[in-house]
Amino acid sequence: MPPPANPARDTGQPGGPPGSGSGPGPFFADMDPMTLVALSMGEPAGIAGEITLAAWRVLRASGPAFVLIGDPAWLGAIDPAVPLRPVASTAQAAAAFAEALPVLPLALGAPVRPGRPDPANAAAVTESITRAVRLAQSGAVAAVVTNPIAKSVLYAAGFPHPGHTEFLAALTGAARPVMLLAAPGLRVVPVTVHVALARALAELRSDTILACGRITAAALRRDFAIPSPRLAVAGLNPHAGESGAMGDEEARIIAPAIAALRAEGIAASGPHPPDTLFTEAARARYDVALGMYHDQVLIPLKTLDMRHGVNVTLGLPIVRTSPDHGTAFDIAGTGTADPSSLIAAIRLAAELAANRRRACTPSASA
Amino acid sequence: MPPPANPARDTGQPGGPPGSGSGPGPFFADMDPMTLVALSMGEPAGIAGEITLAAWRVLRASGPAFVLIGDPAWLGAIDPAVPLRPVASTAQAAAAFAEALPVLPLALGAPVRPGRPDPANAAAVTESITRAVRLAQSGAVAAVVTNPIAKSVLYAAGFPHPGHTEFLAALTGAARPVMLLAAPGLRVVPVTVHVALARALAELRSDTILACGRITAAALRRDFAIPSPRLAVAGLNPHAGESGAMGDEEARIIAPAIAALRAEGIAASGPHPPDTLFTEAARARYDVALGMYHDQVLIPLKTLDMRHGVNVTLGLPIVRTSPDHGTAFDIAGTGTADPSSLIAAIRLAAELAANRRRACTPSASA
Repeated sequence: MPPPANPARDTGQPGGPPGSGSGPGPFFADMDPMTLVALSMGEPAGIAGEITLAAWRVLRASGPAFVLIGDPAWLGAIDPAVPLRPVASTAQAAAAFAEALPVLPLALGAPVRPGRPDPANAAAVTESITRAVRLAQSGAVAAVVTNPIAKSVLYAAGFPHPGHTEFLAALTGAARPVMLLAAPGLRVVPVTVHVALARALAELRSDTILACGRITAAALRRDFAIPSPRLAVAGLNPHAGESGAMGDEEARIIAPAIAALRAEGIAASGPHPPDTLFTEAARARYDVALGMYHDQVLIPLKTLDMRHGVNVTLGLPIVRTSPDHGTAFDIAGTGTADPSSLIAAIRLAAELAANRRRACTPSASA
Repeated sequence: MPPPANPARDTGQPGGPPGSGSGPGPFFADMDPMTLVALSMGEPAGIAGEITLAAWRVLRASGPAFVLIGDPAWLGAIDPAVPLRPVASTAQAAAAFAEALPVLPLALGAPVRPGRPDPANAAAVTESITRAVRLAQSGAVAAVVTNPIAKSVLYAAGFPHPGHTEFLAALTGAARPVMLLAAPGLRVVPVTVHVALARALAELRSDTILACGRITAAALRRDFAIPSPRLAVAGLNPHAGESGAMGDEEARIIAPAIAALRAEGIAASGPHPPDTLFTEAARARYDVALGMYHDQVLIPLKTLDMRHGVNVTLGLPIVRTSPDHGTAFDIAGTGTADPSSLIAAIRLAAELAANRRRACTPSASA
């Protein structure tokens, strides 16, 4: 099951200070007004259209600007009060954003009924993602934000990838995408992701943790503008094994990976007892927590903040974020979907892209 | 490693409404002024003495009254400003509580140096627990609260039990003690506790979940005064296995236990996706969450509230609670230990004992 979107409609600002190594300051500060974000259409029978329209209403005045790649007829039917602007280029989109929601047209294959996805639209759903990625690769947009998709619907239409992340890796030739989840005050990276817990344990290896830590540290430096990111690595067992009394994975697998990261100059600490790693006091001491399995980091993240979570794919040659919720078919079409996570995803994508541009410009430090 | 006590001294009131099936209302309301709690001394080189004195200062006016079983010389050296009253009986203790901290004397074997535990005191540490239990069994006190112990120090002195819980079960002849952790707004029960995660997975069985659910439901009815407790049972795998795509323990082990609990009239639901089970909205829908392993429930509990967590042992013939932290040798003697969790433990013990007495009195409903 995809995690549900929150039921309460809200168009307020996300935020709150992060546990950032660069000192206090808002997550979404220092926005470059020239940044344009490409937004994929997502599953049209879900809440993607509603939250896209709501995000435009909130962001039209302040930015960052975004362009949706999708069917204007679909969006227009959701709320005729929102002005749409079919555009032929990203330059037109950036110029139009304050006045109307810019759309790079991409026709759907079948009519949309909220809550009832149709595999006849799967080709357009995936094509929207592909076009967004190509725009980012060419430099026509600064970043990609993806609306939620329904994997089972895409599978039924022959989609060969397990999910968004793997599809994006295939499109961009990335070897090892890493999932980072960011909410106000907490960033987490699960070393293993969507596998059974028993398999995650059986497959846990030092070199996976090491590779994940390297990619995470590099992304925090370049995209999050944290010069010396602090990685807190969780143990696997209760109390991090309590010196071997409750499991030896800490000594056998996790500690060697931490030592290797430190030998490379990365400020990695741990293995930390998992249950006390996410308290307010603990969160202030690191920039990202690396967890050994999905729920070890998803539980605290969602317990603290369901509304502003953003999924960031690290290790891609492009910047990509997405809201941290699913298609929410159960509330699609009711006008109750909460756009907070999508808005946070667009803001964070623009911020990461601006940071990456600065980091990759030789004169940036002049 | 034991979880650390919180560094900030605080003598304020714990609280906030719980997610209780009996509607809104404070956790610690409806206190019986006649309730006396026996408090074990815990490891004297840890923070137990400091937090005991601080708890008396907070509770002396309002109750519940408690009596410490320990060495008056040790307590007197910590803060001579707190009046102590060595007593010979629990009746004397209850009468003295508003004026002085009552102590049932039990001599230590060696001088106490904060942060440096001495196995020569282990016999007194365990004897204090034994006496508290015997007082509860005889009805001379309403409940037992245990101060934190250092297991490794007791082991060095020949203590044959893995920890407090097993020792209490042995003292009372209980077959299956169950650990419940309570914080404002959240109660959790881990079905497996202090074992390596791989072993917890390998040993997960329907009958263990079933037995744990039965004991939990009975305790919530009798001790927490929740007539029809709602048990939310977590899945084991990400997204609760996503219909078998990420693990089959939900279908094979957990769902049958839930069905068996429901067949017995217990309002059990699940298996729920673990990562969305502890959001504010989700917590409002159950009275207790049953988790499959230690960190699945300890992570959200400690992430939400480190200061007011209380450990309750269900399935014993006596009421027993304890603060949800360790001996905190690192800050012992500095006067910075936070007594909030101990105060919450004493209040909850008195409340549970009062509820149990009402539930077990035939005329209670008249």
